[in-house]
Amino acid sequence: MKNAFYAQSGGVTAVINASACGVIETARKHSNKIGKVYAGENGIIGALTENLIDTSLESDSDIAALNHTPSGGFGSCRYKMKSLEANKAEYERLIEVFKAHNIGYFFYNGGGDSADTCLKVSQLSESMGYPIQAIHIPKTVDNDLPVTDNCPGFGSVAKYIAVSTMEASFDVASMASTSTKVFVLEVMGRHAGWIAAAGGLVDSSIPVVILFPEVSFDEKAFLDKVDNNVKEFGYCTIVVSEGTKWPDGRFLAEQGTRDDFGHAQLGGAAPVVANLIKNALGYKFHWAVADYLQRSARHLASNSDVEQAYALGQAAVEMALEGKNSVMPAIVRISNNPYKWEIGCGELKDVANVEKMMPQNYISEDGFSITNSCREYLLPLIEGENYPPYNCGLPDYVVLKKLKLDKKLPPFEV
Amino acid sequence: MKNAFYAQSGGVTAVINASACGVIETARKHSNKIGKVYAGENGIIGALTENLIDTSLESDSDIAALNHTPSGGFGSCRYKMKSLEANKAEYERLIEVFKAHNIGYFFYNGGGDSADTCLKVSQLSESMGYPIQAIHIPKTVDNDLPVTDNCPGFGSVAKYIAVSTMEASFDVASMASTSTKVFVLEVMGRHAGWIAAAGGLVDSSIPVVILFPEVSFDEKAFLDKVDNNVKEFGYCTIVVSEGTKWPDGRFLAEQGTRDDFGHAQLGGAAPVVANLIKNALGYKFHWAVADYLQRSARHLASNSDVEQAYALGQAAVEMALEGKNSVMPAIVRISNNPYKWEIGCGELKDVANVEKMMPQNYISEDGFSITNSCREYLLPLIEGENYPPYNCGLPDYVVLKKLKLDKKLPPFEV
Repeated sequence: MKNAFYAQSGGVTAVINASACGVIETARKHSNKIGKVYAGENGIIGALTENLIDTSLESDSDIAALNHTPSGGFGSCRYKMKSLEANKAEYERLIEVFKAHNIGYFFYNGGGDSADTCLKVSQLSESMGYPIQAIHIPKTVDNDLPVTDNCPGFGSVAKYIAVSTMEASFDVASMASTSTKVFVLEVMGRHAGWIAAAGGLVDSSIPVVILFPEVSFDEKAFLDKVDNNVKEFGYCTIVVSEGTKWPDGRFLAEQGTRDDFGHAQLGGAAPVVANLIKNALGYKFHWAVADYLQRSARHLASNSDVEQAYALGQAAVEMALEGKNSVMPAIVRISNNPYKWEIGCGELKDVANVEKMMPQNYISEDGFSITNSCREYLLPLIEGENYPPYNCGLPDYVVLKKLKLDKKLPPFEV
Repeated sequence: MKNAFYAQSGGVTAVINASACGVIETARKHSNKIGKVYAGENGIIGALTENLIDTSLESDSDIAALNHTPSGGFGSCRYKMKSLEANKAEYERLIEVFKAHNIGYFFYNGGGDSADTCLKVSQLSESMGYPIQAIHIPKTVDNDLPVTDNCPGFGSVAKYIAVSTMEASFDVASMASTSTKVFVLEVMGRHAGWIAAAGGLVDSSIPVVILFPEVSFDEKAFLDKVDNNVKEFGYCTIVVSEGTKWPDGRFLAEQGTRDDFGHAQLGGAAPVVANLIKNALGYKFHWAVADYLQRSARHLASNSDVEQAYALGQAAVEMALEGKNSVMPAIVRISNNPYKWEIGCGELKDVANVEKMMPQNYISEDGFSITNSCREYLLPLIEGENYPPYNCGLPDYVVLKKLKLDKKLPPFEV
């Protein structure tokens, strides 16, 4: 009977731990077929360095509490495995560690990069004579994975942005007669405007202008739109994606630093937009940058999102037990109203390193709002509330013990 | 039988409408003693320009829904009445409008400036032979009013900041091994550090450094503290008040604009702090600016806060019916654990234009965190959750009809 390895990858979300919970609880239910679940301390680096957390030492109630705890309960990492050609030793090390701890199942919970790693581990392990069943569990607030209808993590961010846009708009509407007339909210989404689109879910009586990374920033058209809104409604709310670019391709605001994947670290598009408005139109403004608050806001998680994150973790284990390999459980939408979905099975070769952008017909012709098709797609994803328990005014989130296995192999430098 | 006038003043909050709800529902219960409640459209300006909303035309269910709706349901304004000497005509106009509409009760829902206006209206109306009972209902997210133990609006912001600090810290802790090690959250609080202090309510296992407006910014001590936290805990969370100042008295970040009260409009302390850290210590950072999100976040309101906001509105009407004048219902704390409070009665002369700062013994000796006394004071204020109803994934906030009375007086320029 083989053990399983589970790791969290990349930026964490409000519900990635719900997937972890689904994996571990389902494995515990099949303890006659699957051994222990080991988790990578800080993601895949934990596997490379043989820092494996023994989840069997966590209580049932602590594992259950993962379902309502944001962030990565075992730690995540931004660490991109190089190509097989560039660093085969790294993949071989991974498989050696798996072999040393009798691990036959690899559950990797992440985005496009980790789907790619998953696929390679499956292929190489086969050729090394120690076949690992590698199953990817989708997670990304950016909602940019193909094959699955939507990605766990996104629905909760979308709900947070929609609710925050609504609440801040109510605020500005109250103040606009003598004070703030323009409110700018900066949201995540480096390449795809899915998160910014969620700002468009508020009632159409609220004037929201969205700046998508998919739409080249047209300063004049934008300022005209804002000015018209202020004249018609008395105020205007702007939701700007961190990935919005000038016509020449530069981001509205780049901080000049890059992460380990070589992605530019962004931030500060909101003050740039606010100042453009002030200089051109003179309106008093306020701006906010939601940053990590939006992706960690488990207090406002979408119930659809929590349920799907758990179900995908559960399905990953069930697929493993059915002998599947190089696959990813995926959300398949059956109907919008009432919202019905089921779990399908995607092939990793179709997932790895493919980025799903917003379809063109989800963005309005003027480029500043969402279409009805987009609204119909998004609304079910923010459906339902799923509140964590509270204790003395604060959410009762769990911190695991994270006790580690004894190491069996020589150290390995990453 | 006299009518009543109600107005909202200054920055709105998640629960100022709960006070409005308390005023209107209580007045409706005493319809044998008090006439209609008229509300100022956009605050006191609505009274000056005779734009009076007839709240009797709003349904019971819409008025009840104010209790769970953030922002100012009737519109607020930033408009400071000048001194009696400088612009007596403005006060006289107010009293003429009240007289024209048979208004005998003035309920003004705001901060220190509006308490001052309230007091003057009471005094002048007496001398003009049309005595108005003026009652101030406290409201300010800054928690800086004297006499009352705490201010409605503050508890919900405090809860939002405490929860957000906790959630973002969980996020950073997950990422810190390979990525972000420092997270900076900028919060409101121009002169008083009450809101920033709420960041200190998270569990002591989370390394939070707070920058208060009350403490002159000591860059070296701050950077040492951050560095030590990163070395000990792997990461550090910083909560910086928008009002934090350099030793020379300049704000860390001033946008150069001023509001109608002459207050500097702040924003952008978070990126300043983040860049200081990056340049000195090299740690990867993320920063967020919560701005209006924090004060409009009715989705995460504190139950204590909602109940108190309503109770103060109710008490204001009851005091009016008891013949009281120039007073403010106030929160009196009876015990911390269990939290018990009651409504007391303060004199407006003790409230007007007095700012309550954080007591020195609420800030730790090193100036970067809160003391146990502070924690004991704050915790009851974030106690309990009070969720709004939702519809299709979004809060079901009410937008009132806001039908206005016919005008009886010539126009008045403000």
